[in-house]
Amino acid sequence: MKSKLSIDKPWGGRFSEKTAASVEAFTASVHFDARLAKYDIAGSRAHARMLAKQGLIATHECDSILQGLEEINTEIETGAFVFRPEYEDVHMNIERALVEKIGAPGEKLHTARSRNDQVNLDLRLYLRDMSGRFTELLRAVQKELVVLARHHLDYVMPGYTHLQRAQPVLVSHHLLAYYEMFGRDIARMNDGLQRINVMPLGCAALAGTGLPIDREFVARELDFPVVSANSMDTVGDRDFVVEFLAACTLIQVHLSRLSEELVLWASQEFNFVEIADRFCTGSSIMPQKKNPDIPELVRGKSGRVTGNLMALLMILKGLPLTYNRDLQEDKEPVFDTVDTVEQCLAVVAEMLSGLRFNRTNLEKATTAGFMTATDLADYLVKKEVPFRQAHGIVGQVVAYCIEQGRELTELALDELQSFSPVIGEDVFAVLSIAGSIASRQSIGGTGVHQVKKALAQAEGALGL
Amino acid sequence: MKSKLSIDKPWGGRFSEKTAASVEAFTASVHFDARLAKYDIAGSRAHARMLAKQGLIATHECDSILQGLEEINTEIETGAFVFRPEYEDVHMNIERALVEKIGAPGEKLHTARSRNDQVNLDLRLYLRDMSGRFTELLRAVQKELVVLARHHLDYVMPGYTHLQRAQPVLVSHHLLAYYEMFGRDIARMNDGLQRINVMPLGCAALAGTGLPIDREFVARELDFPVVSANSMDTVGDRDFVVEFLAACTLIQVHLSRLSEELVLWASQEFNFVEIADRFCTGSSIMPQKKNPDIPELVRGKSGRVTGNLMALLMILKGLPLTYNRDLQEDKEPVFDTVDTVEQCLAVVAEMLSGLRFNRTNLEKATTAGFMTATDLADYLVKKEVPFRQAHGIVGQVVAYCIEQGRELTELALDELQSFSPVIGEDVFAVLSIAGSIASRQSIGGTGVHQVKKALAQAEGALGL
Amino acid sequence: MKSKLSIDKPWGGRFSEKTAASVEAFTASVHFDARLAKYDIAGSRAHARMLAKQGLIATHECDSILQGLEEINTEIETGAFVFRPEYEDVHMNIERALVEKIGAPGEKLHTARSRNDQVNLDLRLYLRDMSGRFTELLRAVQKELVVLARHHLDYVMPGYTHLQRAQPVLVSHHLLAYYEMFGRDIARMNDGLQRINVMPLGCAALAGTGLPIDREFVARELDFPVVSANSMDTVGDRDFVVEFLAACTLIQVHLSRLSEELVLWASQEFNFVEIADRFCTGSSIMPQKKNPDIPELVRGKSGRVTGNLMALLMILKGLPLTYNRDLQEDKEPVFDTVDTVEQCLAVVAEMLSGLRFNRTNLEKATTAGFMTATDLADYLVKKEVPFRQAHGIVGQVVAYCIEQGRELTELALDELQSFSPVIGEDVFAVLSIAGSIASRQSIGGTGVHQVKKALAQAEGALGL
Amino acid sequence: MKSKLSIDKPWGGRFSEKTAASVEAFTASVHFDARLAKYDIAGSRAHARMLAKQGLIATHECDSILQGLEEINTEIETGAFVFRPEYEDVHMNIERALVEKIGAPGEKLHTARSRNDQVNLDLRLYLRDMSGRFTELLRAVQKELVVLARHHLDYVMPGYTHLQRAQPVLVSHHLLAYYEMFGRDIARMNDGLQRINVMPLGCAALAGTGLPIDREFVARELDFPVVSANSMDTVGDRDFVVEFLAACTLIQVHLSRLSEELVLWASQEFNFVEIADRFCTGSSIMPQKKNPDIPELVRGKSGRVTGNLMALLMILKGLPLTYNRDLQEDKEPVFDTVDTVEQCLAVVAEMLSGLRFNRTNLEKATTAGFMTATDLADYLVKKEVPFRQAHGIVGQVVAYCIEQGRELTELALDELQSFSPVIGEDVFAVLSIAGSIASRQSIGGTGVHQVKKALAQAEGALGL
Repeated sequence: MKSKLSIDKPWGGRFSEKTAASVEAFTASVHFDARLAKYDIAGSRAHARMLAKQGLIATHECDSILQGLEEINTEIETGAFVFRPEYEDVHMNIERALVEKIGAPGEKLHTARSRNDQVNLDLRLYLRDMSGRFTELLRAVQKELVVLARHHLDYVMPGYTHLQRAQPVLVSHHLLAYYEMFGRDIARMNDGLQRINVMPLGCAALAGTGLPIDREFVARELDFPVVSANSMDTVGDRDFVVEFLAACTLIQVHLSRLSEELVLWASQEFNFVEIADRFCTGSSIMPQKKNPDIPELVRGKSGRVTGNLMALLMILKGLPLTYNRDLQEDKEPVFDTVDTVEQCLAVVAEMLSGLRFNRTNLEKATTAGFMTATDLADYLVKKEVPFRQAHGIVGQVVAYCIEQGRELTELALDELQSFSPVIGEDVFAVLSIAGSIASRQSIGGTGVHQVKKALAQAEGALGL
Repeated sequence: MKSKLSIDKPWGGRFSEKTAASVEAFTASVHFDARLAKYDIAGSRAHARMLAKQGLIATHECDSILQGLEEINTEIETGAFVFRPEYEDVHMNIERALVEKIGAPGEKLHTARSRNDQVNLDLRLYLRDMSGRFTELLRAVQKELVVLARHHLDYVMPGYTHLQRAQPVLVSHHLLAYYEMFGRDIARMNDGLQRINVMPLGCAALAGTGLPIDREFVARELDFPVVSANSMDTVGDRDFVVEFLAACTLIQVHLSRLSEELVLWASQEFNFVEIADRFCTGSSIMPQKKNPDIPELVRGKSGRVTGNLMALLMILKGLPLTYNRDLQEDKEPVFDTVDTVEQCLAVVAEMLSGLRFNRTNLEKATTAGFMTATDLADYLVKKEVPFRQAHGIVGQVVAYCIEQGRELTELALDELQSFSPVIGEDVFAVLSIAGSIASRQSIGGTGVHQVKKALAQAEGALGL
Repeated sequence: MKSKLSIDKPWGGRFSEKTAASVEAFTASVHFDARLAKYDIAGSRAHARMLAKQGLIATHECDSILQGLEEINTEIETGAFVFRPEYEDVHMNIERALVEKIGAPGEKLHTARSRNDQVNLDLRLYLRDMSGRFTELLRAVQKELVVLARHHLDYVMPGYTHLQRAQPVLVSHHLLAYYEMFGRDIARMNDGLQRINVMPLGCAALAGTGLPIDREFVARELDFPVVSANSMDTVGDRDFVVEFLAACTLIQVHLSRLSEELVLWASQEFNFVEIADRFCTGSSIMPQKKNPDIPELVRGKSGRVTGNLMALLMILKGLPLTYNRDLQEDKEPVFDTVDTVEQCLAVVAEMLSGLRFNRTNLEKATTAGFMTATDLADYLVKKEVPFRQAHGIVGQVVAYCIEQGRELTELALDELQSFSPVIGEDVFAVLSIAGSIASRQSIGGTGVHQVKKALAQAEGALGL
Repeated sequence: MKSKLSIDKPWGGRFSEKTAASVEAFTASVHFDARLAKYDIAGSRAHARMLAKQGLIATHECDSILQGLEEINTEIETGAFVFRPEYEDVHMNIERALVEKIGAPGEKLHTARSRNDQVNLDLRLYLRDMSGRFTELLRAVQKELVVLARHHLDYVMPGYTHLQRAQPVLVSHHLLAYYEMFGRDIARMNDGLQRINVMPLGCAALAGTGLPIDREFVARELDFPVVSANSMDTVGDRDFVVEFLAACTLIQVHLSRLSEELVLWASQEFNFVEIADRFCTGSSIMPQKKNPDIPELVRGKSGRVTGNLMALLMILKGLPLTYNRDLQEDKEPVFDTVDTVEQCLAVVAEMLSGLRFNRTNLEKATTAGFMTATDLADYLVKKEVPFRQAHGIVGQVVAYCIEQGRELTELALDELQSFSPVIGEDVFAVLSIAGSIASRQSIGGTGVHQVKKALAQAEGALGL
């Protein structure tokens, strides 16, 4: 009997044919789920300790299991462990290795447990780790942004809407916009953790188990604040994975926006920023090229991350309870998204540290384009002109300037007064870039004082 | 000047051509964003009060604005208000109507404010309402599930994995699995609210304003706990919309799973449930048909809800700061998702109340298919057979039964003992459905005691 | 009996409850499928003629039906027809109106036909029309591109890779790249037509009909080259819809790329192109703004078109044969995609006609950025320097220029010779923009001769 | 100089810093694009022959290049070749190896060519191969379906709409529905080929080349019917990839529908089909389970295939001309989709050959559920009852049967006549399953004669 088991599938009892080789290849998951090995082992250790505590296995059996798992863990870490596709998945590979290593006690480890349990647990432990890892990486990007913002507090640039120059802003204010975005990403990671951090073990196949287990003990061992409430829900639940993927998609969308801006800013037309040579590549045919490959790739990778989210949603659509094998397809999108977003966050943080802003060009760009037109309108408002009329007046001033090929600051006082008699000498302070920026003292605005406050807060939050 | 304004665009000053008619049609949004009117008016009221408090408009001007907005609100509610596409969007329609109604003071309302501000505010107010609305609807579905679970506490059914009968479960346990899913949906709605509930007004076009506004006053007026921290981020931020759409997608995925089960259960093959006639439709050609249209449509609608999420992510990809007109495309997916999910939740709740479970068929289905095989394995484990061996033994028993066309409960003791000598007379209690279910006393399991506990908790949480 | 039918559902016979009002609202499709009315009527006319030809209805009954349908068609066209949601869909609305109008013969129209048949037919007739419509619109955009290309044959501009200036190209060459893309879109429309253009009527509910119909007669009447081969496949087939949506998505992706370029080119930084005022809008707060709303919206609308494709794929996933009500969800995405792409093509064609290229800026941009570096490398290759070495040499020349802040054309011959002795006086012809462009005589290249050939071909194909 | 080149990047000339290690890792593609090696070599061979023919390299240099490439090809095939990430991609790896092997002539291979050219060519050659491969695999699945249909010509089953039993059909008719779907997939593969089969080489970086190349010679060498018409379009064109992915998505959607049906049919409730043990797996905890893993996984894999399509569309959205590094992200989705669909088609073909239909259960299911109600209605129509009235009458008969718990065939003639006096003795032939199926003689219907005709045609088309 035993020897039969060690050759055949663990579930082979009722089957009259061997699994087809093509089917083994098709259904095997160990080539990707091996990544979960350390979480699987951690889960098995907690499970074994619980089985012993509950008298379902003897203490010496438990010790033997713990010892065997420890050795397997080391073998995996050192690369000595050989995962075998014919054992299907990471769970069976480890259990088989355990039985080979310690014999009979190993055959008791799966007591009161199913693979449905295990895969759910492993994924939760993994995503709990990844949520922490991503929070760190997001903070690292935030730090680079804040450091850049601190170093460029006196750099101005055009703020854009519709990619048209709109109003002067501080470079630091622009950079801190991304600080906010990544801050929301951290908050989402944290919120999602509430739904990751639920202990599934003990649901068994789908209905719970008739053996006297202690789920709360296992939860404590694995540092889960709570156990799952309904076994059928738990076994088929991948909500926490979707939620994690959705949060990652937003991170990548944020990165894609930053990347777009870097690609624009590094163009000869904008020429706002120089990306360090070590973060660019050249052309195999055009010797003069220096290409912003990093932000282009980061921008492009928003495709796969979104595709992975779509994949999982489509997998889940219309699945009846509880476990269906379709769910095996959840892992590759998750791993691909984790790898992608992790890489992107790391490389973007590094690249940010190598940016050099071209102060002269930024300033030159800010002086053209009637960017203080709103300030002129606000000036009129302060002189009691209703806003809608003020807006109309300034529109006519701008039209006049375009016709003449001049900027607002180049108009004489009497020219300005021909559009509105309320305009006085004090208007010129308002039309300057410095004046414009200084004036934006509403909370969250680009006024220097506001930006310094925001910066100080960010530095405090990041422990800088 | 004023008359010019009342004919032309509010931004027409610098333009030398009239907008092409095709462009007006193409860019207009009022046919869909009119839905935001009441939020827009609420925002304008708070803004006007703030302007008055800060001395940017006179008190009598403020009163006049508030009065005018009140009238417009009533006109909109009663359907008397005519939205005009040539005024582009809901914001301009309302402002124009206000100016027509009250004259000069109306032209001051847009002081220190931009449409970018307004659209962001309106969307946040709207989604804050919808988050509340969806929480209510989710709870209504939960209530129907709990009521059904309470009424069917003594109904058993097969629990499935891979759509194969696996282990006996209580119908109530199965229903409560969905209670859990919708509970997580509520939690996500709530978490997302943290990022919706941020006051954007005062960011103006993108850089803040030079006029002395009080954002925190506006926040208090509109019941926001916090104001946004960076004007450039705020103006281009649609994270909260993506997050809401992602949460809705999961709701709809849950509904699609429930729907799939109802379609299956209502088939002649399963015949587990009867959906009330009033929730079904017939065939134009086959007189005998009674079709489960509701769950089919609900299942199908997971497509559009997911498509809307995809749409918004693709819109946001690679957009530079701050506002780009692409963002106008955010609203139709949101409205479509809100309408769809709202309708689905409402109709599912109603339909659940009309379900009739076929007890006889459920029981018959539960007795076939060796569904207590795991119980037999657990029995052997309790008799000290290592789990892996126990599993193998039971596999052979099942193979024997299949060959003989018999169920486990139909074997004699000596037949059972031929597979393992540890089997005794007490095995028959274990092999019964009632015995199986009763035994699953692990937390979250299908044991009656556990299910009753879960049910009582759910009833408590829902105030039943 | 008859009066019962005229109040109740057409399928009401076996039902004991009236449909719930919420269910009627939820399942009704007439608010969107009314758009198919004229196709439904065309199909019904062909069907009636076939029934008469086969003796399934009398000639006078057929005449009466045709007459009634004609009247209904007119009522619909003139807006006199009232669609009623309680009749569910366009098919039933028309049939009910027919029965009301002509009495008994109207009750025979549905002989040997099902709604599954009708909806499939209507959608095919509609998409056949739309394929033709889109081909026209695509050709209209192509025409504007070709006209622009013809008018700007002597305009140069930088060609980009990685949004970095790469090599000089003709503006016409760049424009004709889009001519090619839209040409492929036309080809895809045409290919898809093969699978749209299949006559479904006669599959009845799913299994064909026992009545002696003549499907090939109906096909001829409706101008279909072929009838569908398998009734069960046909009833559940939406492949042709997916294929149409996928083709539309590529159109919109092409439009999004063109739009991105227009947004870039209209920025102050590029300043390559002026979009006519009538295709732009302004800002409610910044009087100087002129925003490229059309291309931004077109770019953004790629989201919804892709989302609609996603929606339909998700709907179809895992549906068993044959018709499932989920399929009703196919129509809204199709209609939305048709409307969106139709609008975008029309408005883009119009906008293209209003573009003004800034020749001076285009030329200035082309002279900077070492854009003839590849030409220098090719020059060295012609002088027998292996390409990889040539590339390296030019790389060093460029590095030298950057250091010195000079362009390639500004180097003296002896400076150039210090990098490679094979360089002679003839190099300067190669380094000029005109020389560079003139040289690209490979088929499909930007050489003037090639572009003129391509242009002439395009004009021929478009009948210009 | 040369030694510098052999250490550094091929484009290093103008760069002052070495590429950061993290950037090398981030941008390298050789770990996935190595799969294109044989296509890259084939392209290089044709390119070298053209260069020699045009006198751009000497004949002996060409011979040396061809010889070197041949050796590299063999090394790759035998696994002896080591791809090095620091050489970025498959193109550079091969070129570097060539230079190491044959020296100077190798440095001439890249004359008049860019990597943009190469990657486009390689992808086209690869997808041309894959289109052929997929056509074969689709035909293999079709063959298994046809063989099954031939062997089960006398098996009946319920045809379903809304997963409710609707009308009796032949199992063969149901199987041949999938034959049609996969036939359309083949047609789409073939149509897409027109846009894959366009020769890109010679576009060089983006503008064509100034060297006297012969693109049409290369096209003939590589068996392309046509060369691409616009270099800027070609370099940034991934339409053919999107189109291939979209076609693959429909294949996978078809497979998902077939899989859903197999999962249903293999359930204990349907029990229509037995999937051979070698295509199923068991449970680690429930010894009695036999799970339809193959169809579940195939169904689930529709997620990733759709996700890959979404990924590529999102990547392409809004990319300006011509090449942007984002495009590197096209390959992994393509490879993943190719591998997935290839595997699924192969394993489904194999699994189909192992299906065993349960004739008894199929027949039993067909006799219940009033499945010949439509036949009764058609019977009444033949007796001159208008269809709508006939439908109503049969609805009442069915309601009567449900109330009595009887089937249509169990009613006596006088009972039937109480619903309609036109019913005669001949009605009973109509109410039998055999009579129903036999009657469906419309083209494409389930009538035996029609199915046999369809089957014979399919067998002819497949050469069976």
